Amino acid sequence: MAGYSMDKEDLSRRLRRIEGQVRGLQRLVDEDTYCIDVLTQISAVSSALDSVAVGLLDQHIRHCVADAARGADPAEAERIMGEATAAIARLVRS
Amino acid sequence: MAGYSMDKEDLSRRLRRIEGQVRGLQRLVDEDTYCIDVLTQISAVSSALDSVAVGLLDQHIRHCVADAARGADPAEAERIMGEATAAIARLVRS
Amino acid sequence: MAGYSMDKEDLSRRLRRIEGQVRGLQRLVDEDTYCIDVLTQISAVSSALDSVAVGLLDQHIRHCVADAARGADPAEAERIMGEATAAIARLVRS
Amino acid sequence: MAGYSMDKEDLSRRLRRIEGQVRGLQRLVDEDTYCIDVLTQISAVSSALDSVAVGLLDQHIRHCVADAARGADPAEAERIMGEATAAIARLVRS
Repeated sequence: MAGYSMDKEDLSRRLRRIEGQVRGLQRLVDEDTYCIDVLTQISAVSSALDSVAVGLLDQHIRHCVADAARGADPAEAERIMGEATAAIARLVRS
Repeated sequence: MAGYSMDKEDLSRRLRRIEGQVRGLQRLVDEDTYCIDVLTQISAVSSALDSVAVGLLDQHIRHCVADAARGADPAEAERIMGEATAAIARLVRS
Repeated sequence: MAGYSMDKEDLSRRLRRIEGQVRGLQRLVDEDTYCIDVLTQISAVSSALDSVAVGLLDQHIRHCVADAARGADPAEAERIMGEATAAIARLVRS
Repeated sequence: MAGYSMDKEDLSRRLRRIEGQVRGLQRLVDEDTYCIDVLTQISAVSSALDSVAVGLLDQHIRHCVADAARGADPAEAERIMGEATAAIARLVRS
């Protein structure tokens, strides 16, 4: 399960790789690559983005949500947890 | 944001409605309904299932994750948070 | 690739199995099963629904879209293809 | 429905915009932006990628699939349609 944890450097490295993949997609489109091959590459970028999102959520739960749960302000904890759920809902639907 | 919170009764009611929708899908297939209309209905069931999942995650974060964060056992908190992330990852990918 | 093709009987059988899975979800909720186990089961139902949707789209492309492409009415072919894309878009987003 | 159709220039423009969004994500991570705001931005990039994929599929169905359906080689038509379904399946799951 530790596989979801990403530190800042890991996140940056993954995002740089995704940027390169998106530039690769532009090249594929410019060179009139067969649609299906472009789509396969888009699925790969999409999965890579999902992994970054899950890694960020993992950090968020371990730090912000856990701190809020331990904190003295129940209304603030409530707010932080509702915000985490809303972010998860956006990801599940996007 | 409170919209994501679901109590047990709400979850049950939503699942019964989804069961009815799936039975409706069988009827559509039996009656040779036009594919596109069946697909529209599948998208609706899929979104309804996602909402139940997000509601469950909301409960899980507010109770199990928060309790683990407040608890005396950091290894157990670690385990609970990793487990939550793994469940989110499965949902984002499914 | 033939794995995506489903005849009517196969679709019905899969939908009946999904209905059973949804009923199983209600039982899990009624029995206060641990959230994470319910979520794992929801991911499974969600994937099973996606497979049915892909099977239906496969049939739709092989029959309706192919017939429209071969037909004498370009406006109708245009309409059928736009409709297929819209159904795919709903699935990708749901 | 015409909204899904994208010509090559439109695809390139969208991919350039997505590349800029991914670079923006790197900046957000470098500046330690609040996780939730980074996640909101990832959901936006993910939706933008989905739109490009749907636009490509739309082109693919209107051209390659339609041509294969009209062609003289049923085995080739079969292959092209199975390939389209497989690409749709990857997108629905990614």
